[in-house]
Amino acid sequence: MTLGELARIAGGRLHGDANLKIRGVNGLAQAEPGEITFFSNPRYQEALKATRASAVLVGESALALLGGRDAIVVEQPSLAFARVSAAFHPRPEYLPGIDPRAVVEEGALVDPSATVMAFAFVSRDARVGARAVLHPAVFVGERAEIGAEALLYPNVVVRELCRVGARTVVQPGAIIGGDGFGFAFDSESQQHTKVPQAGNVEIEEDVEIGANAAIDRATLGHTRIGRGTKIDNLVQIGHNVQVGPLCILCGQTGIAGSTELGAGVICAGQVGVADHLKVADHTKLGPKAGVMSDIEEPGYYLGTPPIKAREFMRREVVARRSGESARDLKRLEKRVAELEAKLEALTKR
Amino acid sequence: MTLGELARIAGGRLHGDANLKIRGVNGLAQAEPGEITFFSNPRYQEALKATRASAVLVGESALALLGGRDAIVVEQPSLAFARVSAAFHPRPEYLPGIDPRAVVEEGALVDPSATVMAFAFVSRDARVGARAVLHPAVFVGERAEIGAEALLYPNVVVRELCRVGARTVVQPGAIIGGDGFGFAFDSESQQHTKVPQAGNVEIEEDVEIGANAAIDRATLGHTRIGRGTKIDNLVQIGHNVQVGPLCILCGQTGIAGSTELGAGVICAGQVGVADHLKVADHTKLGPKAGVMSDIEEPGYYLGTPPIKAREFMRREVVARRSGESARDLKRLEKRVAELEAKLEALTKR
Amino acid sequence: MTLGELARIAGGRLHGDANLKIRGVNGLAQAEPGEITFFSNPRYQEALKATRASAVLVGESALALLGGRDAIVVEQPSLAFARVSAAFHPRPEYLPGIDPRAVVEEGALVDPSATVMAFAFVSRDARVGARAVLHPAVFVGERAEIGAEALLYPNVVVRELCRVGARTVVQPGAIIGGDGFGFAFDSESQQHTKVPQAGNVEIEEDVEIGANAAIDRATLGHTRIGRGTKIDNLVQIGHNVQVGPLCILCGQTGIAGSTELGAGVICAGQVGVADHLKVADHTKLGPKAGVMSDIEEPGYYLGTPPIKAREFMRREVVARRSGESARDLKRLEKRVAELEAKLEALTKR
Repeated sequence: MTLGELARIAGGRLHGDANLKIRGVNGLAQAEPGEITFFSNPRYQEALKATRASAVLVGESALALLGGRDAIVVEQPSLAFARVSAAFHPRPEYLPGIDPRAVVEEGALVDPSATVMAFAFVSRDARVGARAVLHPAVFVGERAEIGAEALLYPNVVVRELCRVGARTVVQPGAIIGGDGFGFAFDSESQQHTKVPQAGNVEIEEDVEIGANAAIDRATLGHTRIGRGTKIDNLVQIGHNVQVGPLCILCGQTGIAGSTELGAGVICAGQVGVADHLKVADHTKLGPKAGVMSDIEEPGYYLGTPPIKAREFMRREVVARRSGESARDLKRLEKRVAELEAKLEALTKR
Repeated sequence: MTLGELARIAGGRLHGDANLKIRGVNGLAQAEPGEITFFSNPRYQEALKATRASAVLVGESALALLGGRDAIVVEQPSLAFARVSAAFHPRPEYLPGIDPRAVVEEGALVDPSATVMAFAFVSRDARVGARAVLHPAVFVGERAEIGAEALLYPNVVVRELCRVGARTVVQPGAIIGGDGFGFAFDSESQQHTKVPQAGNVEIEEDVEIGANAAIDRATLGHTRIGRGTKIDNLVQIGHNVQVGPLCILCGQTGIAGSTELGAGVICAGQVGVADHLKVADHTKLGPKAGVMSDIEEPGYYLGTPPIKAREFMRREVVARRSGESARDLKRLEKRVAELEAKLEALTKR
Repeated sequence: MTLGELARIAGGRLHGDANLKIRGVNGLAQAEPGEITFFSNPRYQEALKATRASAVLVGESALALLGGRDAIVVEQPSLAFARVSAAFHPRPEYLPGIDPRAVVEEGALVDPSATVMAFAFVSRDARVGARAVLHPAVFVGERAEIGAEALLYPNVVVRELCRVGARTVVQPGAIIGGDGFGFAFDSESQQHTKVPQAGNVEIEEDVEIGANAAIDRATLGHTRIGRGTKIDNLVQIGHNVQVGPLCILCGQTGIAGSTELGAGVICAGQVGVADHLKVADHTKLGPKAGVMSDIEEPGYYLGTPPIKAREFMRREVVARRSGESARDLKRLEKRVAELEAKLEALTKR
């Protein structure tokens, strides 16, 4: 491709030779001549200066750092990079059809343009939409629905009645629709009695679910993942959770039963949110934050229980000085005792 | 079903029309006329008042809030709900027999009433009990044993020699009997040398194991999960761990090697317990608690290291005031210095 | 085997009867006569005294505690135990060959000495090395490479282009090469746009990957796991992470994108390391540590953000006294106010 074509794909302004041939994308440090790279994280200024790439996707402000290299000037270099990289790495083509070594049970409807690979299992009365792809050892339960162009990597399980929206991508090993964790203790029989988990999971369109993530079916009704939400590896979503649209849930985050996340909520890695809570739209929860009550005011939170990041950092400073403070207090107590003694003596004089 | 029949199933006292026809269960907010719902969490009083359900499972004390609706009065509404819902959602029937597309190796014994679905793999000398169900891509290793009525969802792995008790339910993707994480550093070859993990996992009866959970086999002897214990998704149980009966381990909890949990221990989500520890019967560990030494006294604990919840909350209050305290201390130091100067002046006078 | 042979295997000094017949290894408490056990954790001194084992692997210093039992004296009892146990539990033999119920696509090269079991799937142009073992429902993607003697347990997924080194062991359900979690927000279409994850994962030799762990492929270039590193269950490794050789990453640890761990780094359970960081060689991160900035100085760290363990413990002590300190401060303020009043009165006199 030429730099001119890539400028059009990136939605940016060409800064250099429109006919320059570009054969691939790469990182700042790894790029070779003939490749295009991008610069967005200011940590990597030195790498930008040293890059061997033939062209760079940059923001206006970084143009001065280019030292005469060809460039495409864009508002968001990372978004432009996503588009340019997608031009070089199109979604692979899958051969449509049902492999004879797959199982498609009676009553299941598989669109003729869908791909069902060997060892995939489509249960009774399930539906698989147009151009959807089921890799080996994918399981689709009874009456489950897989939307058009959904991409289910190997060993994904979608249990009965669950729905996966159009264009949703499910990474390998993710489990959709496992039973919610609901038990009631029976003091007579001295057992935890299972509460039937008779609801389902509804995953809307353009969602991504990470490898080995687990999204539980509702006790009754639906566990819902909103349109365009992206969920990372090993994330746990409890029964009846409602995740709004366009959320970002990073690795190993856990959301407990019946909790509602608003639109555009961001959870960094290993965040936990307890059950039956509400988290306001656009709230950002920092790494390992542990939410134990509703969050009504959006903002950036850290800690368990979470506090505004600024307050967290302030406490950190105080904690760092805490030993010193304890010593200061002791010293001050001594000075006060001395003062008291002196004053006592003075008064008696 | 009639309300009278449901009262019998729930073990409750009928409060209304015994012949009222009920066709399903649902949540307070979702229920339609003709359905029964339940009320146990006081947060949902408004939803109770607004519910369109024809009948409600309630405790004695909530009877006043019903406004004339039909009800079944029970001691534990959530337990009664579990029973009533189970009446409407019986365990699905599975066709007994071994699918010709499954593999059952030589020497394996599969009870004729068990179900082995396509792509399931039962290794040499394994046993599968009466009415047990193996979904697609379930793997049962050599000499492993699956108890009667055990239910193994798709992609569950039970490695060699491990035992799964009667009526135990294993959600999709759970791994039972992976190697424990045992290595000894060999300073000569500069390698971590693997310690053979030659023991097994023994899961007793009526246990539940969550989706993508991982329970490691013992180095020698047994990793054990006690009768009636319920384990949630993505939980990690290390080698040689002993989990007592009737425990509840919520999502993403991890128990490190050789640790012993007593009977009825409850771990909230994302709890961690370090290796070689003992946790007393009926201990409750709050969300994200990190246990680093034995817990001898039952109670409700929070934090890392965990402290009694009451003490945790008290420290929270102090921490919230910590910046203020630091300023108070500074101010007090200034006042003491002034006092000292004044007293000095006074003494010299 | 005889005690003499075992002494040679353990690389230790015989202390007793070279001809003593030993038929197995076992734990201190579980061992029967005829078995050998080992003693390394001083917590278990009582168990050592009570053991019924016929011989014990011990360090020089513990020889006095043996009470006349036969022994093999070694420098590292746990390493010696690993070797002796390996002698009793050799790696099982696998029948070489491709099961007719497996799929090996065109262009894939499977060494004749490798084992490919039923329901395993080897994609186009993949390679499987000598004596490598693929259990049922293992998926190997296009152009992926599995090294010699690598052992892939059931339901392991190795996606396209990824490489697994020689002798590497992958526990059941682990996912290698799922897409990295990379999205750029497109404010025009109001969507998170997927950044193609076009790189791969390179796992060097002698690595171990735990059950249901997830190691993401790089956006571009490689995610790398260094030689001899051991990774436990449910660990998450983000795209482009570089893990050095001989690291130990315990259960449920998560390393976010592009972070670099040096050689011999140890992460205890549930550790989290944020993205784009560097952690120095031989750093030890304690349970649940949450790393938010580079660690340049090796040491043992705890907490979020992590601090040296000694400092963590000191803060714990201060925190435990924090309520008391607050009261002390209040009391001191009162004493100062009294002093001020008295001094005022005295001055006026």
